Amino acid sequence: MNKPIGVIDSGVGGLTVVHELMRQLPKERLVYLGDTLRCPYGPRTAEEVRRFTWEMVDFLLTKNIKLLVVACNTATAYTLAELQEKLSIPVIGVIQPGARAAIKFTTNNHVGIIGTEGTIRSNAYLDALHTIKSDIDVYALACPAFVPMVEKGILSGDYALDIIAQTLLPLKQFSNMDTLILGCTHYPLLKDVIQEVVGSQVTLISSSEETARETSTILELQQMLNEENEQCNHQFYTTGDVEIFTSLTNRIFNSSIDNLKSVSIEKVVI
Amino acid sequence: MNKPIGVIDSGVGGLTVVHELMRQLPKERLVYLGDTLRCPYGPRTAEEVRRFTWEMVDFLLTKNIKLLVVACNTATAYTLAELQEKLSIPVIGVIQPGARAAIKFTTNNHVGIIGTEGTIRSNAYLDALHTIKSDIDVYALACPAFVPMVEKGILSGDYALDIIAQTLLPLKQFSNMDTLILGCTHYPLLKDVIQEVVGSQVTLISSSEETARETSTILELQQMLNEENEQCNHQFYTTGDVEIFTSLTNRIFNSSIDNLKSVSIEKVVI
Repeated sequence: MNKPIGVIDSGVGGLTVVHELMRQLPKERLVYLGDTLRCPYGPRTAEEVRRFTWEMVDFLLTKNIKLLVVACNTATAYTLAELQEKLSIPVIGVIQPGARAAIKFTTNNHVGIIGTEGTIRSNAYLDALHTIKSDIDVYALACPAFVPMVEKGILSGDYALDIIAQTLLPLKQFSNMDTLILGCTHYPLLKDVIQEVVGSQVTLISSSEETARETSTILELQQMLNEENEQCNHQFYTTGDVEIFTSLTNRIFNSSIDNLKSVSIEKVVI
Repeated sequence: MNKPIGVIDSGVGGLTVVHELMRQLPKERLVYLGDTLRCPYGPRTAEEVRRFTWEMVDFLLTKNIKLLVVACNTATAYTLAELQEKLSIPVIGVIQPGARAAIKFTTNNHVGIIGTEGTIRSNAYLDALHTIKSDIDVYALACPAFVPMVEKGILSGDYALDIIAQTLLPLKQFSNMDTLILGCTHYPLLKDVIQEVVGSQVTLISSSEETARETSTILELQQMLNEENEQCNHQFYTTGDVEIFTSLTNRIFNSSIDNLKSVSIEKVVI
């Protein structure tokens, strides 16, 4: 099916999901909308997150999408159930795929979760894990400094290491954790530094990689895969400044994705 | 939804999928049927495999299952599309989940596949990979000695190492492979020896683990998860000798699954 997949995020974090969708589903066309103007969503109220998310969804529905990926953990936590109920297309959030991957990877059932204040406060990961498996022991930690750091393009170096090490100190209380969910789509961009801080004995789960994987599963189940191997012309939209968005996009993708040259980026008012 | 998940296999290999379903979906009740009497399916004709598979499916449909897992790569290769078309419940095979996991894990797009003669001859993995991503370079190798070895309970030791090393010799031609799909549900039982032979630089993909993971995804999407946390009473059926089946089941599960004590095993004629 040659319709595009729609992807929404509060800013540029969702591009880590886009990166994985391009890698794992290279025949699929993507339409992305990042609400960079109003990012971050983490500290906002549930009502605000819900309203902004619906504005993004309404915009993408005009693009004739076949499936919607909510590539923002905060938006997933507050709106997934409602979107799944009201939309006639499949809607995939980033929380359940990460939770399922953690259940697969953990061997001692001690799972850490890091995310925005909104995501952690919502208990959405805890609920997702315990709905499936009750005896998972969870330690959840909000990391409010990480999203602004990524949106500024600070992804490594001494400053990032220092902030991350300070923020993750409370995780030391949970020293037998063998799996840590990166419960925010911005965090895969800090993966190397986070791994350095928590140690190599901890498996990091990227909700971005896992969400792309489950998108593939669901597209196949619903017989919606695009089997034609044509050039994909992806469309990216931002509610904020196009130049800043473009520069961050280039930094995030580096040169690792060939077909980034087939992306058009436009500013949009929603 | 408190109906059971049905699982079919040519013998005991599918129990590796059962093991993962119990671990990743501990609230779900399972009904398993292993066609031990007519195992292995690998060398049989497509027509025979199809007929035997339908006989197993017809038996499990009488158990009011909510979802069917075809936990045998050979049966998946020859019957999945037909089962998906004709049954009104979701049907999950073991090939597509392994293919998707390989696409996620490989970084150089060089993927090896080992399986039974039937699975390899069917090109089902190649098709599953290339439907999603055309530029995956694949080397497929049939390993006819492995299933009979596992069904005899030979899972490690010098004899197993010798057979596996000899069988996998042709893979040396494909020396830059970074991912190897264990394309038979018996093979996870030989995982340690296979890893020793191919080296630690190769990621082994267990179709059993990945199929359990996707079963979880699809149950949630279809709102079919069993959210009650009650004692599961699993039912295992075999077309062969119950004592041999029980002894192999114990050997496969070891003591790693607590709720194996809640399993009843019966012989059945289909």
